[in-house]
Amino acid sequence: MKADVMFETLRLLGVDFFTFHDLDIAPEGKSLKEFNSNVTAIANILEGKMAKANKKLLWGTANMFSNRRFMAGAATNPDPDIFAYCAAQVKHCLDVTKGLGGENYVMWGGREGYETLINTNIGQELKQAGRFLSLVVEYKHKIGFKGPILIEPKPKEPTKHQYDYDTASIYGLLKSYGLENDVKLNLEQNHAILAGHTFEHEIALAAALGVFGSLDINRGDYLLGWDTDQFAMNIPEVALTMFEILKAGGFTTGGMNFDAKIRRQSIDPDDLLHAHVTSMDACARGLLIAAQMVKDGKMEKAVAKRYGKWEEPANQAMLAGKESLDKIAARVHKSGLDPQPKSGRQEYLEGVLNSYI
Amino acid sequence: MKADVMFETLRLLGVDFFTFHDLDIAPEGKSLKEFNSNVTAIANILEGKMAKANKKLLWGTANMFSNRRFMAGAATNPDPDIFAYCAAQVKHCLDVTKGLGGENYVMWGGREGYETLINTNIGQELKQAGRFLSLVVEYKHKIGFKGPILIEPKPKEPTKHQYDYDTASIYGLLKSYGLENDVKLNLEQNHAILAGHTFEHEIALAAALGVFGSLDINRGDYLLGWDTDQFAMNIPEVALTMFEILKAGGFTTGGMNFDAKIRRQSIDPDDLLHAHVTSMDACARGLLIAAQMVKDGKMEKAVAKRYGKWEEPANQAMLAGKESLDKIAARVHKSGLDPQPKSGRQEYLEGVLNSYI
Amino acid sequence: MKADVMFETLRLLGVDFFTFHDLDIAPEGKSLKEFNSNVTAIANILEGKMAKANKKLLWGTANMFSNRRFMAGAATNPDPDIFAYCAAQVKHCLDVTKGLGGENYVMWGGREGYETLINTNIGQELKQAGRFLSLVVEYKHKIGFKGPILIEPKPKEPTKHQYDYDTASIYGLLKSYGLENDVKLNLEQNHAILAGHTFEHEIALAAALGVFGSLDINRGDYLLGWDTDQFAMNIPEVALTMFEILKAGGFTTGGMNFDAKIRRQSIDPDDLLHAHVTSMDACARGLLIAAQMVKDGKMEKAVAKRYGKWEEPANQAMLAGKESLDKIAARVHKSGLDPQPKSGRQEYLEGVLNSYI
Amino acid sequence: MKADVMFETLRLLGVDFFTFHDLDIAPEGKSLKEFNSNVTAIANILEGKMAKANKKLLWGTANMFSNRRFMAGAATNPDPDIFAYCAAQVKHCLDVTKGLGGENYVMWGGREGYETLINTNIGQELKQAGRFLSLVVEYKHKIGFKGPILIEPKPKEPTKHQYDYDTASIYGLLKSYGLENDVKLNLEQNHAILAGHTFEHEIALAAALGVFGSLDINRGDYLLGWDTDQFAMNIPEVALTMFEILKAGGFTTGGMNFDAKIRRQSIDPDDLLHAHVTSMDACARGLLIAAQMVKDGKMEKAVAKRYGKWEEPANQAMLAGKESLDKIAARVHKSGLDPQPKSGRQEYLEGVLNSYI
Repeated sequence: MKADVMFETLRLLGVDFFTFHDLDIAPEGKSLKEFNSNVTAIANILEGKMAKANKKLLWGTANMFSNRRFMAGAATNPDPDIFAYCAAQVKHCLDVTKGLGGENYVMWGGREGYETLINTNIGQELKQAGRFLSLVVEYKHKIGFKGPILIEPKPKEPTKHQYDYDTASIYGLLKSYGLENDVKLNLEQNHAILAGHTFEHEIALAAALGVFGSLDINRGDYLLGWDTDQFAMNIPEVALTMFEILKAGGFTTGGMNFDAKIRRQSIDPDDLLHAHVTSMDACARGLLIAAQMVKDGKMEKAVAKRYGKWEEPANQAMLAGKESLDKIAARVHKSGLDPQPKSGRQEYLEGVLNSYI
Repeated sequence: MKADVMFETLRLLGVDFFTFHDLDIAPEGKSLKEFNSNVTAIANILEGKMAKANKKLLWGTANMFSNRRFMAGAATNPDPDIFAYCAAQVKHCLDVTKGLGGENYVMWGGREGYETLINTNIGQELKQAGRFLSLVVEYKHKIGFKGPILIEPKPKEPTKHQYDYDTASIYGLLKSYGLENDVKLNLEQNHAILAGHTFEHEIALAAALGVFGSLDINRGDYLLGWDTDQFAMNIPEVALTMFEILKAGGFTTGGMNFDAKIRRQSIDPDDLLHAHVTSMDACARGLLIAAQMVKDGKMEKAVAKRYGKWEEPANQAMLAGKESLDKIAARVHKSGLDPQPKSGRQEYLEGVLNSYI
Repeated sequence: MKADVMFETLRLLGVDFFTFHDLDIAPEGKSLKEFNSNVTAIANILEGKMAKANKKLLWGTANMFSNRRFMAGAATNPDPDIFAYCAAQVKHCLDVTKGLGGENYVMWGGREGYETLINTNIGQELKQAGRFLSLVVEYKHKIGFKGPILIEPKPKEPTKHQYDYDTASIYGLLKSYGLENDVKLNLEQNHAILAGHTFEHEIALAAALGVFGSLDINRGDYLLGWDTDQFAMNIPEVALTMFEILKAGGFTTGGMNFDAKIRRQSIDPDDLLHAHVTSMDACARGLLIAAQMVKDGKMEKAVAKRYGKWEEPANQAMLAGKESLDKIAARVHKSGLDPQPKSGRQEYLEGVLNSYI
Repeated sequence: MKADVMFETLRLLGVDFFTFHDLDIAPEGKSLKEFNSNVTAIANILEGKMAKANKKLLWGTANMFSNRRFMAGAATNPDPDIFAYCAAQVKHCLDVTKGLGGENYVMWGGREGYETLINTNIGQELKQAGRFLSLVVEYKHKIGFKGPILIEPKPKEPTKHQYDYDTASIYGLLKSYGLENDVKLNLEQNHAILAGHTFEHEIALAAALGVFGSLDINRGDYLLGWDTDQFAMNIPEVALTMFEILKAGGFTTGGMNFDAKIRRQSIDPDDLLHAHVTSMDACARGLLIAAQMVKDGKMEKAVAKRYGKWEEPANQAMLAGKESLDKIAARVHKSGLDPQPKSGRQEYLEGVLNSYI
């Protein structure tokens, strides 16, 4: 049985968590009711096996993109019946995730956008997105689900534009609906670069905004304009990723999910093995490098020094809003302040970075 | 004198407004105090001339990017002295803008980002950005400046990443600091496409979020990765832009600023003439097309129909938060709802669009 | 029967030509021999129907990308058996194309590239590409097929890199193997922009190099990094395309193939209708605009004037290789030549262009 | 004096070669004659100093892009006087380069393209490019300059399109004019990625085509659309670059030129030091890794095995053109060949690669 293979694979790889999409574990059947029953039935089987295998559930999620009904969106569909249908699908999937002790629940927004603006009412769709997310958060509290709701930024593909474009975009949506304490981000390198950002940027920004959640640990190709979802292999890049995670205080409920696939031409059984082993090795080496970076502190000290003057009480006060614009201006004129540029020391820091590789 | 040439040019082009950067109208001198005096002196001259020429000021702005001191940022500089210096520069420029009856004040953020994440504290810099913007808004109220503060999104160039990446990013920042009612966006096509968006997307999104302000009416090149700031010439594209503006209810305090430059090889005097005339003609034709689109309503009716079912009271209630997730789910199961996809009619709408060209 | 529907559709649209992929008209069967028989059987049926419908074959092509055996390439596969297999498949398809009076034969290279350079021998694969193309050209002459062999540039997707990246790349390959008189290009806007070029650039370059053949008349999205194959709709862009075609002297054996698909959400029967009608209308309007441009000659005269000095005999001689570098240098020094820049008049020409829209 | 500083710096860094742009070493003066005299005068000084310092000249080049006269191109300028002027400038610079024992001569084509196709005659400009290059090659032979002429691919910036887009494009031009034995390529990572290629792709392709020459050893930013010319620092990337160079047999007349600049904010003297030291260290480590890869041969053996079947005599014959398309087809049918896909082993090779880092 497939679940046994999965748990055995996790055991061999030394991985503690698994994840599930409702549609991956159970067939749709003829109605949502039947689908829900199927999901429940499989979940019950999984429950026993995960106990035996001593594995935990990182997150569950409802697939609201494969079925044709979602082609114009799930929560942001112009048809309110689809919105309602999604509510029923997510409710069940969240119930099941809670039942299995899931640490997070993921809202995967692969259709929440548009193909062309000329048939789209952005304002309406954003309201739907906000309302749906609020519904889920309200229900999460109602049933006592402790983990965060995770959203995965993704700028495009298969759509032309998605509302969950990147960390900054989603943060704006969360702030609009007061959801920033209940919803966190599930970040992926491939989606970051399609939005024009580095992976470490997305992690650092999410951490700074208090919405860092979890990671899909794959990678894209900088020169290709679509998701390739390759296994993460580049050691210096993984090290930078890990460094940002460690600086952010590490994961709380989140983790790293291998949402990667082997290449189309990798058709031998051992290709799968090489992919996992090499990528886990790259992650491990990246983590060791990052740990060393944190430990000896050269990078962090240099950055702290760069911003050091902000630590002075007068400057802390200015940042805390204790001075008005005209008062600051008066002080500047009084002191004849004429600040000069300082080196950003980029090449020095690149040298420090390379000293760890 | 240059100001006379400017006002005569505005007269010939039939343009009502001008704009200014402090550094464009006055030399820096040896200190900020001297610079401020220079700006004031020129502003006094401008005041007389604009009255005579019957022209108004669309916006003023402080140039906080050309001087080397801003190379690591203005408000987001690691050095708090630069932050303070900027406060003094903006205070004066806002005073002058108010004095000249400016309708808006622009914060141009061309250095508010980073060159490399490895020397950067994003969280600190975002706090600085939020605090600085708050300072300006507080001061605006203090002196009774009525117009909005405008921010111009710009994703990169000359930096690696800017905090004012796009409409969605800036909206998140504004919501974080409660500034969304006082700060609006000054959008530009060239910056939109560098962030991966169409111009009409940025306008529609800003309008939907209530932060649409003003426009820089130039364009970039889809196949080049930097600002080319060419004159807007593509009639169907301008028509789509104007359509979004009209749907958004038109400008309130904002307007259209020709922030365009002729090409490097356009070195004859009449090149400047051809550029302005052709681009104004393209804008006029785009506006006429958009007006026709709004008038006969085919596009808007098709879109309204697409979302029409949301007008039903039950669906309005669902969107208004009057049902919980489990209650919606119960209703879905009770009714056996099985919604099917509907055509997005993209090609039909593209045909309607072309019927106006 | 499907062929009847196709010919009836062509009749309704007023289109004279059809095209075929071997795999689209006949099932693969259990062996290449069976596949070939199937293709022949259907071709025989088509032959009768095309005579009755008075339609002609623009081109035929062998699908050497859908079957899994081609995942590492067709002619450029590391496995010589695949190369041989392709030879047999193309031989038959070319025979059939000739039998149906095809005007061209297309080599569609969707797998002729690599996924990763680290498993690839570029030199070997280029030799294979050159040899295969030579085989086809030699065979074409042997059987007296009059039309050109067409290659369609495509830079990537689904591969990481393809050898037929763009017009310039393919031209280099053709020159290496002396095939530039027998092989022409089948260009597509979507592939042009993925390689970083405008469509009109690719057409103008192919025409200048003497390898312009035929067109796939669809379009991509400038802001998306993959083929969207949308119907061509943008009138000014189509006009520029048509202008380049007219300047190149029009098609000889080539034509325009609607290699476009309606959008995923266009699921109603009339979406297909709207797509074809609107795109044909856009093409027709583009052609009329281009014809007007050619007729009044303003654009061409301006360009001719720009290069006019090259018409002087001395300059023609210099270009024809009748002067050596040192002789030219001596002449420059003798005359004290000090040439100054001249305006490129881009905005003037953009204005002329817009006067036709 | 500046030259002394340069030679002392080369000594400290342990670098054997220097390079020069005519405009960097001498002022333009009032005429080309005066400029040439200035260049000669400085060259005479350099000659003595390089002998004393025991340094050699990697290449010389004429700057035909900074002066305004080149804004519409140098050799490809619509004005034949500019073409002639360039001939005179290059003649002198090549004479000087030969006089200094230069190993190569570089044609830097930063303006050989267009800003807009609507004012451009591509066919004419390509003829000019071909003729100019031929003039230089003819003159090189005349004066007995032994080294190759180098061209540096660069797809855009500051132009919209350049004829020397990438390796494949230039190769086509060289083949058109029979120059492929005299002209080689000077490749740069930053230009490679702006054309959509990896650096190792450009090197491997140039080597396969027999036109690999020299390198500018800097790097760009994958997420930015313009030249950043940063110092090469990424060790796995440099290793791949070095691996391709070693597989190509190493440099013959070419070398590695640090065409990099420190970042705008790197304004301290020691930033320059950190940049050079870190980048040279990265290059050295990359070279050591590549040498190890070549030595133990795991990568090359895996690739050789992938193409191994081509070594069989029958397949060598097929590739050598000893079989016709119909003969190959007959053999395929006779043997009932039904080739199946084989794994590309990408992840295995990525694992091998990482084992060297």
